[in-house]
Amino acid sequence: MSPLPSSPDSMPEWLQKRAAISPQRLALIAGAEKWSYAELNQLVSAWAQRLVAAGIKDGDRVALLAKNGGHFVQLAHAVPRMGGVFAPLNTRLTASEWSRLVDDLRPALLIHDETQAAKAGGLKKELPELRCLSFEELGHYPGDSGKDANIGESRIDLAAVHSIIYTSGTVEPKGTMLTYGNHFWNAVGSALNLGLHSDDRWLACLPLYHVGGLTILLRSVIYGTTAVVHESFDPAAVNRTIDEEGITIVSMVSEMLTRTLADRGERPFPPTLRQVLLGGGPVPLPLLEVCASRGLPVVQTYGLTEAASQAATLAPEDASHKLGSAGKPLLPTEIRIMGDDGSLLPPGEPGEIVVRGPTVTPGYFNRPEENELVLRGGWLHTDDIGYLDDEGYLYVLDRRDDLIISGGENVYPAEVEAVLESHPAVLEAGVTSYPDERWGQMVAATVKLREEGTICEEELLAFCAERLASYKFPTRLRFTKELPRNAVGKLLRRVLREEWSRA
Amino acid sequence: MSPLPSSPDSMPEWLQKRAAISPQRLALIAGAEKWSYAELNQLVSAWAQRLVAAGIKDGDRVALLAKNGGHFVQLAHAVPRMGGVFAPLNTRLTASEWSRLVDDLRPALLIHDETQAAKAGGLKKELPELRCLSFEELGHYPGDSGKDANIGESRIDLAAVHSIIYTSGTVEPKGTMLTYGNHFWNAVGSALNLGLHSDDRWLACLPLYHVGGLTILLRSVIYGTTAVVHESFDPAAVNRTIDEEGITIVSMVSEMLTRTLADRGERPFPPTLRQVLLGGGPVPLPLLEVCASRGLPVVQTYGLTEAASQAATLAPEDASHKLGSAGKPLLPTEIRIMGDDGSLLPPGEPGEIVVRGPTVTPGYFNRPEENELVLRGGWLHTDDIGYLDDEGYLYVLDRRDDLIISGGENVYPAEVEAVLESHPAVLEAGVTSYPDERWGQMVAATVKLREEGTICEEELLAFCAERLASYKFPTRLRFTKELPRNAVGKLLRRVLREEWSRA
Repeated sequence: MSPLPSSPDSMPEWLQKRAAISPQRLALIAGAEKWSYAELNQLVSAWAQRLVAAGIKDGDRVALLAKNGGHFVQLAHAVPRMGGVFAPLNTRLTASEWSRLVDDLRPALLIHDETQAAKAGGLKKELPELRCLSFEELGHYPGDSGKDANIGESRIDLAAVHSIIYTSGTVEPKGTMLTYGNHFWNAVGSALNLGLHSDDRWLACLPLYHVGGLTILLRSVIYGTTAVVHESFDPAAVNRTIDEEGITIVSMVSEMLTRTLADRGERPFPPTLRQVLLGGGPVPLPLLEVCASRGLPVVQTYGLTEAASQAATLAPEDASHKLGSAGKPLLPTEIRIMGDDGSLLPPGEPGEIVVRGPTVTPGYFNRPEENELVLRGGWLHTDDIGYLDDEGYLYVLDRRDDLIISGGENVYPAEVEAVLESHPAVLEAGVTSYPDERWGQMVAATVKLREEGTICEEELLAFCAERLASYKFPTRLRFTKELPRNAVGKLLRRVLREEWSRA
Repeated sequence: MSPLPSSPDSMPEWLQKRAAISPQRLALIAGAEKWSYAELNQLVSAWAQRLVAAGIKDGDRVALLAKNGGHFVQLAHAVPRMGGVFAPLNTRLTASEWSRLVDDLRPALLIHDETQAAKAGGLKKELPELRCLSFEELGHYPGDSGKDANIGESRIDLAAVHSIIYTSGTVEPKGTMLTYGNHFWNAVGSALNLGLHSDDRWLACLPLYHVGGLTILLRSVIYGTTAVVHESFDPAAVNRTIDEEGITIVSMVSEMLTRTLADRGERPFPPTLRQVLLGGGPVPLPLLEVCASRGLPVVQTYGLTEAASQAATLAPEDASHKLGSAGKPLLPTEIRIMGDDGSLLPPGEPGEIVVRGPTVTPGYFNRPEENELVLRGGWLHTDDIGYLDDEGYLYVLDRRDDLIISGGENVYPAEVEAVLESHPAVLEAGVTSYPDERWGQMVAATVKLREEGTICEEELLAFCAERLASYKFPTRLRFTKELPRNAVGKLLRRVLREEWSRA
C-alpha cells in the first residue's frame, strides 16, 4: 500500500541542504577564520572535485592525518561528498602504530597537513604502496570553489559508511564504521536531549579524529548551528572563547574541565554557556561538586565510538541526586544490562552494558567474525560493566573492564603488554591503571621476567617510551614472581588494579 | 555485514520513554489541570487497558468526537498505545457529513464527550452498527492508572499507521493515514528548523482534530516539553496564557493571529514567546507587517495534512525580504515544482508543488487507486500551484488550486457544489472564494438553474445552511446563464474566483 517508507533510507545531503536553507548562517569558526554555510559548502565542493581529479573513487577510503582546523573540517565533509569513506587518524600514535593501522585500513589516499609530513613520510617508507598527499599537493588538483555543485540536489544513503574511526592502536587495530544514519541519529538523539538553540555554538577542543570531536562537526551542520574548532586544548583559549565567542556547549573530558576551572579562577561563567558535555570515562565526584557549586551545567555522558558518541546522559537537574551516574539512554537508544548467559538483569545487578538503536555501528571494518560476536542478537555488547538503578539510571562500573582511559584517550592494556612482552627479558606482563587526579587514570605495569635481575625498571620503561604514544606508556612498573590468573589462565587485571590502587 | 539497519524500523514508544527519561517534567496543561510525564503515562496506560477491556483489538480504528482537553490528549496517546488507529473527527461537521465520514472509516468504536453526545446519538441512528461510548462509559471499564505498563519497554513500528485525519467532509471523505514515522520525522524536522528548548511550552489553540493541533501533542512528547491545550480559540485566553504561562511557541492561522493582536492592544509580547507558527493558507501581507513592527517572530509555514503538518517554513530572519513566501523545505523534506508532463520546472516557473520525504503519508485510507495517482513516482502530488524562486524559496500561488480556506478550515468547492446541485431547481453550480479580511477567504457560489426564476438566492442559501457546516456554506450567491468551462468541459473555478474578486 505504501510506496513511501516511513523510515527513510536516504535524505538530502546535510551540508548542501544547510547551504540551501540557511546560506548566511555561520557554519564554522577555526582560529581567526570564519565560514558561512554557503562558503563552507563551496570549499567542500572544491575539495570533493580535487579528490575526484586525484583519482579517488566512490567507496574508497581516505585517511586524514592532521591537526584540528579548517582544512580538517572541509575534508571531513568533502570525502563523504565525493563518495569516499572518511578515516581520521589519531595524530598521537607512533610510526609503528600508524603503520599497522594503515595496513588494516588500506586507504586509497592518506592526506596530511604540514605538521604530520614527517610521519607520513615514515609511513610511506614502511608501506611503499601507500599514496600520500599533503593539503597543499591535493590543492593543486583542479577544484572550482565557485561552483555550487548542485546545492540541495544530492541525496545520501543512510546505511552507507560515512567514516571509520580507529579506537585501538597496534596489537589489533579496530576501525569502527559509522554510517550516515549513525551520525544523523546521534544528532537527533542529542538534540532531543540537550535541546537545540538556533544560536548554538559548540566548541570542539577535543581532537576531531575522536568520535567526540568529529560528531560536533556533523551535528552542527545537521542543526544549522556553528562549530567552533580549536587546534588543540588550551584552557586559557577555551575560557577566552567561552567569554568572547558566545560558546553555548562544549564537549570535554574530566581532565580538560579541571584545567579549565583552574585557569578560570574565580571568574564566573557567562550565562551563554548552557552545557558542558562531559564524557570519556568516569568523572571524579569532587569535580562534579565544584561544578555544581559554580553553577556550571555539566551533562555527564556515557559515550562510545561504536554508538557514534553519546548513548546515555545525565541531565543537570539529576546531577545532584544521581552523582556518579551516566544518566539515561537517549530517546532512540536502548540500554540494557545483560548477564553472561544473555539474560536481561534486574535493576541493581551489575552485568555487561548492551546498547541498541540507530546510532550503533554496523561493525568494525574488516572484522566479520568479531562483529557477529559484538553485535549478537542485535545488541552492541560493549564489554563495559554497569547496572541500572530502579529508576533506570545507568551506573558504569568498569569501562570496557580493562580499558584504561588516560586524559580521555583509550589505552588498551593488551597493546602495552604486547610491547613489554616483545622485550627479550620479559616473560609476561599485566597492565592496568592507577587513579590520577589530573588524567583520571595512568598506566601501570606488572612484569614477570624470564630471569630475575636481568633488567631494571628504568630500562624497561625507556623501551616502552620508544614504542608507545606518550599517554600509553607505563608511568609505574614493578616486577613480580607470578601474575594473578583465574582457573583457565586468564589474566585478572582487576586484581592488579586493586594492588596498584593500594600502592 | 550489518545486522543493524541505520534507519530504524522501530523505536521505543515515545510517551513511555519520556516517562522513563523525564518523569517529573510537565507534559500537559489543559485548563486548570496539569500532568507530569509520569502522570500522563499512567493515565494513558489506564485508558489503553480500558480500550482493551472494551474489546478493541490491535489494528482497530477508534474515532474520537470531542472538544480539546485532557481527555482528548489521553485518548490520542491511549488508542495508539493499545495498537489502535486514532481517528479524531472534526466537531464542526453536520450529522450528515459525519455519517458519510464514519461510513468511510468504519471504526470499531466512536468515543465522544458530553458536548458531542447528541451528535453521536444521531450518528448511531443512521448507522445502527456503530458502537459509541462516552468518556464516562469507557471509564467504567477496568483500567489501573497505578500500573506502569512496562515503562520504556514497548516499541513502536514506524511504518504502522498511528492516526487517520479526515481533510474533506461529505462528497468524498478522505482520511489521510499518518504513520508513527510521519509524526516522528515531523517532530525532528520541526526541531531542526524551529529549535528545541528544554523549557518550551507549545500552545495548541487550534482544534486537536486538525493535523496542526494533533502534531503539537506528539512533538511535545517526543521533545519532553510541555503542550498547553485550550478548549477553543479565545484571543483573551491566548494572551493571558502567553503572559502568565510562559508559552514559547504557538500555532495559529492568520485569522486567529489578527484577533490575538486586536485583543492585546498595545501591550508588548513577553520575550518568552519565541515563535508564532502561522499556517493554514496564504497570510495577508499587512498582517505580517504589523507583526514585524511589533517584533513578533512569525514563522510562516506551508503545511499539509498529507505531510504531517509543516513541509516548508519561512524563518523570521527572511520574513522581511521574502514577504509572501512559505520559505524553504524542512531538512528531511524535498519540495519540487512539477509540470503537467512530470518534468521538474526551473526557478520562477509555476507548476504543481510536489513533496517527498519521511513525513509524507503512505496514502488515504481505503483509496488505493487515488493513492497511486497522488503518490506517483514517490512524490506527493499536492495539487497546489506554486514556484520556487532562484534562491529556493517556495511561493504558493493557489492552495490546492480550488480549495477554499476559511478561517483555517478547508472547504472543498466540489462538496458545496454537490449540496447546491442536490436542490431540484439547480442544474449546475460553481463554488469558489472571495477574499475576506477576517477569515482569509469566504465561500461564493455561482449557480445555473434549470429554469430561471424558480428559486431566489435566499432560499438556496437557507437550503445550504441546513446541510453544511457554518464555515462551508456560501455567504454570496448569484445566478448565471453559463458557467465557465474549458475545452473538455472542466469547470474553470479560477475564472469564477476572478469574477468574485472583482465583484
